[in-house]
Amino acid sequence: MDSHMIDSEIFGHQWASTESRAIFAEKARVTRWLEIVIALARAQAECGIIPTESAEKIAQLRGVELPIGEIGARTRETSHSTLGMIQVLRGMLPGEAAEHIYYGTTVQDITDTSQVIELLAVGALLWRDLWWIEDALLQLAVQHRLTPMAGRTHGQPGAPISFGFKVASWADEIGRHLQRLRDGHNRWRVGQLGGAVGTLAFFGDRALDLRAAFCRQLSLGEPDISWLCARDRLAEFSHVVAMSVSSLARIANEVYALQRREIGELAERTRASVVGSITMPHKRNPEVSEQIVTLARLVRSQASVLTDTMVNEHERDGRNWKVEWVAFPEICHFALAATTMARELVSGLEVNSVAMGRNLGANSSSERLLSAMSVRLGKHRAQRLLQDAYSQAREEQRDLSAVLHGVATEAELAELSHVNLGASGLMVDRVVDTALRRRASESEQWQ
Amino acid sequence: MDSHMIDSEIFGHQWASTESRAIFAEKARVTRWLEIVIALARAQAECGIIPTESAEKIAQLRGVELPIGEIGARTRETSHSTLGMIQVLRGMLPGEAAEHIYYGTTVQDITDTSQVIELLAVGALLWRDLWWIEDALLQLAVQHRLTPMAGRTHGQPGAPISFGFKVASWADEIGRHLQRLRDGHNRWRVGQLGGAVGTLAFFGDRALDLRAAFCRQLSLGEPDISWLCARDRLAEFSHVVAMSVSSLARIANEVYALQRREIGELAERTRASVVGSITMPHKRNPEVSEQIVTLARLVRSQASVLTDTMVNEHERDGRNWKVEWVAFPEICHFALAATTMARELVSGLEVNSVAMGRNLGANSSSERLLSAMSVRLGKHRAQRLLQDAYSQAREEQRDLSAVLHGVATEAELAELSHVNLGASGLMVDRVVDTALRRRASESEQWQ
Amino acid sequence: MDSHMIDSEIFGHQWASTESRAIFAEKARVTRWLEIVIALARAQAECGIIPTESAEKIAQLRGVELPIGEIGARTRETSHSTLGMIQVLRGMLPGEAAEHIYYGTTVQDITDTSQVIELLAVGALLWRDLWWIEDALLQLAVQHRLTPMAGRTHGQPGAPISFGFKVASWADEIGRHLQRLRDGHNRWRVGQLGGAVGTLAFFGDRALDLRAAFCRQLSLGEPDISWLCARDRLAEFSHVVAMSVSSLARIANEVYALQRREIGELAERTRASVVGSITMPHKRNPEVSEQIVTLARLVRSQASVLTDTMVNEHERDGRNWKVEWVAFPEICHFALAATTMARELVSGLEVNSVAMGRNLGANSSSERLLSAMSVRLGKHRAQRLLQDAYSQAREEQRDLSAVLHGVATEAELAELSHVNLGASGLMVDRVVDTALRRRASESEQWQ
Amino acid sequence: MDSHMIDSEIFGHQWASTESRAIFAEKARVTRWLEIVIALARAQAECGIIPTESAEKIAQLRGVELPIGEIGARTRETSHSTLGMIQVLRGMLPGEAAEHIYYGTTVQDITDTSQVIELLAVGALLWRDLWWIEDALLQLAVQHRLTPMAGRTHGQPGAPISFGFKVASWADEIGRHLQRLRDGHNRWRVGQLGGAVGTLAFFGDRALDLRAAFCRQLSLGEPDISWLCARDRLAEFSHVVAMSVSSLARIANEVYALQRREIGELAERTRASVVGSITMPHKRNPEVSEQIVTLARLVRSQASVLTDTMVNEHERDGRNWKVEWVAFPEICHFALAATTMARELVSGLEVNSVAMGRNLGANSSSERLLSAMSVRLGKHRAQRLLQDAYSQAREEQRDLSAVLHGVATEAELAELSHVNLGASGLMVDRVVDTALRRRASESEQWQ
Repeated sequence: MDSHMIDSEIFGHQWASTESRAIFAEKARVTRWLEIVIALARAQAECGIIPTESAEKIAQLRGVELPIGEIGARTRETSHSTLGMIQVLRGMLPGEAAEHIYYGTTVQDITDTSQVIELLAVGALLWRDLWWIEDALLQLAVQHRLTPMAGRTHGQPGAPISFGFKVASWADEIGRHLQRLRDGHNRWRVGQLGGAVGTLAFFGDRALDLRAAFCRQLSLGEPDISWLCARDRLAEFSHVVAMSVSSLARIANEVYALQRREIGELAERTRASVVGSITMPHKRNPEVSEQIVTLARLVRSQASVLTDTMVNEHERDGRNWKVEWVAFPEICHFALAATTMARELVSGLEVNSVAMGRNLGANSSSERLLSAMSVRLGKHRAQRLLQDAYSQAREEQRDLSAVLHGVATEAELAELSHVNLGASGLMVDRVVDTALRRRASESEQWQ
Repeated sequence: MDSHMIDSEIFGHQWASTESRAIFAEKARVTRWLEIVIALARAQAECGIIPTESAEKIAQLRGVELPIGEIGARTRETSHSTLGMIQVLRGMLPGEAAEHIYYGTTVQDITDTSQVIELLAVGALLWRDLWWIEDALLQLAVQHRLTPMAGRTHGQPGAPISFGFKVASWADEIGRHLQRLRDGHNRWRVGQLGGAVGTLAFFGDRALDLRAAFCRQLSLGEPDISWLCARDRLAEFSHVVAMSVSSLARIANEVYALQRREIGELAERTRASVVGSITMPHKRNPEVSEQIVTLARLVRSQASVLTDTMVNEHERDGRNWKVEWVAFPEICHFALAATTMARELVSGLEVNSVAMGRNLGANSSSERLLSAMSVRLGKHRAQRLLQDAYSQAREEQRDLSAVLHGVATEAELAELSHVNLGASGLMVDRVVDTALRRRASESEQWQ
Repeated sequence: MDSHMIDSEIFGHQWASTESRAIFAEKARVTRWLEIVIALARAQAECGIIPTESAEKIAQLRGVELPIGEIGARTRETSHSTLGMIQVLRGMLPGEAAEHIYYGTTVQDITDTSQVIELLAVGALLWRDLWWIEDALLQLAVQHRLTPMAGRTHGQPGAPISFGFKVASWADEIGRHLQRLRDGHNRWRVGQLGGAVGTLAFFGDRALDLRAAFCRQLSLGEPDISWLCARDRLAEFSHVVAMSVSSLARIANEVYALQRREIGELAERTRASVVGSITMPHKRNPEVSEQIVTLARLVRSQASVLTDTMVNEHERDGRNWKVEWVAFPEICHFALAATTMARELVSGLEVNSVAMGRNLGANSSSERLLSAMSVRLGKHRAQRLLQDAYSQAREEQRDLSAVLHGVATEAELAELSHVNLGASGLMVDRVVDTALRRRASESEQWQ
Repeated sequence: MDSHMIDSEIFGHQWASTESRAIFAEKARVTRWLEIVIALARAQAECGIIPTESAEKIAQLRGVELPIGEIGARTRETSHSTLGMIQVLRGMLPGEAAEHIYYGTTVQDITDTSQVIELLAVGALLWRDLWWIEDALLQLAVQHRLTPMAGRTHGQPGAPISFGFKVASWADEIGRHLQRLRDGHNRWRVGQLGGAVGTLAFFGDRALDLRAAFCRQLSLGEPDISWLCARDRLAEFSHVVAMSVSSLARIANEVYALQRREIGELAERTRASVVGSITMPHKRNPEVSEQIVTLARLVRSQASVLTDTMVNEHERDGRNWKVEWVAFPEICHFALAATTMARELVSGLEVNSVAMGRNLGANSSSERLLSAMSVRLGKHRAQRLLQDAYSQAREEQRDLSAVLHGVATEAELAELSHVNLGASGLMVDRVVDTALRRRASESEQWQ
């Protein structure tokens, strides 16, 4: 079916990435479950719980064509999440092996472990893209280390900054997300094998050995205790994703604002085939930026649901758990669509330094004028005098320089036209230095 | 694709209904868009904006096989939401008519109008299901008008209620949702035709006539002004849906709680083929109830995003608008899955009045005992005496009646074993009367 | 204490209104509870449940100085929400009356009824302010019915609109909120009297008579059934508040955007004493607008919690109920602060029609040019030609008119400089007509 | 004022802690701002920006009585967040020093730095309480390492667990929150000094030296770049708080459920003076547990707003920033109220192992029976046989053992009454070992 945007043949490219779809497509998911079932059988054979022969037979199911339709029919029949698949697989196995598949295990053993594998796959792609984006931003920051533009507060142009300073603030934030992904990696990469209520009672003395072998088979860490109802790891990962994409949305939203025709300082690169508006042919819309903002909002919404559902009851809580089945893949699809678009946005960003200079205007450096006057008059007196002069000029619609001439000396007024970027460049350097040191000390792969 | 649960062949039945899928499937959506394009052409012919012949040619596209793949390719090429479809449709039309399709209109004219049609379809199904559920609840309330059970506050059994009283509270709430759906119907059923920025400038003097004709073609109401950025209607409808499904979740959560084996007062009907637990064969899980709670949570989350995105900028805001493309269909799928399940839950609810009586126990009627003692001792003195007696019994692990014997008279103590349902039955009657009067005065169809 | 912004002596004016504080101040709340306790006593006397004399004694407590400190101490001692107050009140009463105060009732009878009274007070203020704002917007829309400015989509200037058209869209939305407040009024104004578990068992046969008398005493409607765990009314009201304030935030956000110095079309009126920036004396910030956006976001967040907590368990659910104690007053404070600021914003809005004209520029009317060329070339061919011409001009940095001269005729090009407002004025008229009709048919007071 | 629950004299103890109020009370906040202003002056003197004498005069303001009323009046007059306070302070200083206070700095330099100091204070209290709670839980887990009780899934009793296993799962989760607090500490403890737009242009060459000195004065780390609009640190901290409190809510919710009279396995300790219910004297309510659940929900809601507001515009965004003024202190108050209550809850938890055994019942160990039968019959055949037997017993209301006797051997049936805790104890050991190792390696203080 194709009734969700993520699955739309027409619009899916805006809501998911090729890679996210390869992870979460139904066949991919069921195949992953089969891999886990195989890993379990091998671990059980290793621990002497089932015969090696059975494990080998089960392992031979790898690569088998899985009949999704029949699995679906049996799932609806039994109302059980994995039994449909298991029944089908059993039908493909000789007698004894058929009894040894999915032996003593339960739904969440499969689905939780599967979700961790998905998390690791998505996290690795996120890491790769944020790593790439950080690099691109660092280069952009260096390139525009001293390109002057208006700083803006409350939507109003204020004292100057360099464009590199703005970009470095983005890079700095992305860098912290990389740290967070690093910090969380070991916390998140644990398998699940708990059986009915988490105690693995089915397996008697061999329980913890089996769990260790199972996790080893899948290259996952081992938890100290079953985490059927302890979902903080997922909540944490989802929030790191939400923060990461929100940072991309901050960048995208800035492009949206600075691409306004009246400002014109930044622009998305556009392809010739893109049609901005059918009715207004002159329009050039920041569509990629808009979509990133949209995606980030949806990611945040679903991530916050996953924090809500941490409050589980007892040893397994069906009211909270399946929320993850929708919310977690959505977060991943939207996030990877967003990082894909953000790479496109950042790499094609058109910077119009002429417009930046023009918008900076003649009056922005009031902070420097104030600084100069403060030496003579004291800071607060100077501030009051300037504030009044600006108000007067505005109200009487007089030229500002005329009004200021009675107030400031010539030398002080000269500061107005002097574009002072303050520590913009030095702060860029700090950000770059820290980032390069961090990047040198670690791998391009998430681990 | 099938990577969202809604589109899963295996699990989709838990996240959408057959009907919701018929509304939102990709082909259904594109077909609906074509219907709207046809309605527009007819309206334009009616107003003399395009030749009648062109409108007829365009109308003949109805029922044509829409090549989703090609539409998708062109959509990706142009990065435009409707142009892909329009290009394909133009290729199916002779020269002049090809210039008259989608004439002077813009994306949101099509998609907003389409969304209103979807809203009306979903609202009608929601109305039908709530109407049905209200009826079933009213019957259940009457049937158990005086079936005694423990009222519970803070999770603790307290004074008695009748089960009908509990059910009537549910029915009462559902009844208000029906009112809300009724109240909102006319507010919500308006078409959109605004052109580039909402002013319909393309159409000169005939603008408002055209809009009227267009809405009439689709049996929609006409708005006073374009609502490209005024999204309160969608926010309101989505919230009514969220409240409705939350009421179903209140019922479902109650079943979940009262189906606990230690309580055992209610149970979902189950089919023989359902497998509760592979590892614990004795289990019987309230799965439908759990899923309704899950669905309601996801509906609320997405509904609240649609209130957030009311804060739009200018005449069209691409950052907020497309949030609807995901959030609105999700709400609808989840809600209709929930109402379908709620019908199943309510109609098959197993009521164990024996267990209700047993759990009510001997000590619940302390409210009546207090009432009786209040006459003799004053209410607050009586309350204090009783509170102390209960504490003493608990601490000394003595039998309560022994402790109470020094405190209350025999006649007063008799109240303890007298199950007094208070106005339970009368309140059931009130709810039923109001509901029946309302139901008699209006149609079973939403309008 | 004063550790919440709402209670801050320094910043409280930004987070609450004088009126909201008069409703929710601790003394006001306790006084309101006393009023309800008195109403209950009177109703009980009326029904012969307690002696008239006791009711009179209790009624004489009206106006007594309530010792908040002592009530607090007793509340902490008993861990009971109303018993602290009741104990204090009993100490002020002679023996028998002391036993008849708060007779057979429970916390939520008092607090729910109190909350309804608060809701009605807040709703009336909201109605008054929205009514006022709608009027101001209607006047502004009429005044600027044909003041041309750029419509903007995707943040980019597009075809022209009139400023009145923009304002009418705001008014139209506010008007629907007034409708919603009207629709909900009777649903929301019901008292609560249910006793321990909602059945009023304490009062025997006189239960429903008592409830009727109690509601009558307080001029409240009577519910059909106790609604201790049926919180849809509060969720609905809160959402209407959230939508209303979000519409104000849409207006405020628009002012923020159009007050950008590079745009300069709108501006908040400012007082001379206001200091925009200490460090940048030339700044003039849209502070009121920003604060309204801030307040709306907080209102939405808390309103959505109140929808979440509709899923209550059993006859009273302490885990959900007290969420209201924080979320509901916050919504009210923030909303009334926002309406107060919105009145200030709307009434002092500075409209710079010169800047509007300047920003509209020479090229915005591409929709009209397209319309003219469509007659000659067909719409889609014309669209493609224009799109290419605009791209070419942009890429080659050539003058647009030069590029267009080979493409369009002189007569067609004349459309570019012709500012066509389309149906802007007529849509303003529609909105105004509908609003005036509605306003004429109903009272300025909410009822 | 006292209109927010946090500031209520009657109810404040449920919504804040003594410590949280000491941090966020208005006087405490203004005093902290003064401390920061003093630190700034000292740093400026150190860097030769202002005379040492001025810095000394400014430092002498420490401990001065701050006239909140006058500061409020001036704040309302100027509409500026810090100018009111600065004007008052200037009035207390001799001429030159009055010009050197708050020199070249801006609101967020003060408020952001203040917020970081608050965050560190709150984080330290949270760390202390979680550290304490983890310890208490570890002890409880060890104590009940092998106390049998029913594991419950889907609200239904299933295979046995030990109570220690349940508690260890809580401790395990708390332990991860301690790790997260540790991981974030250095990320979060950075001061803010950026001036107008973050570039510190006012201070020329001495800018970064000044920032370093300023942060050193306050024992804060130094950021690489101003973070006026980079709010990820606050979002991250808030989410760690939200997760921590949600874990406490998971514990509390479990107590609520297991304290149900029908279950009776856990109970809150209660004080004799506590009145559970005025109308139902026998009630004993899990009030502390309920309130923790309530607080956690409110914390999550406000934390998620702080992730939303990461998407800031330009160099300072007034629409997002002040959201923090409400949301952040609320999170802290609610969280510290919750940890205070959780300490009380955990330390006074009454564990009824008799009830645990009773509820476990005779039929819970179906997982063991299944395991035994699997050896003979194969696992899936055994599962099917058992599932059918259970259904049959239920439908025919026959005794289960009778039904099972045809199905299982005597030896197998013996497993049913054998309470097998599986790896419960071993998993407890793992959790305890890991926690003790971690606790031994780090300080009881957060750093």
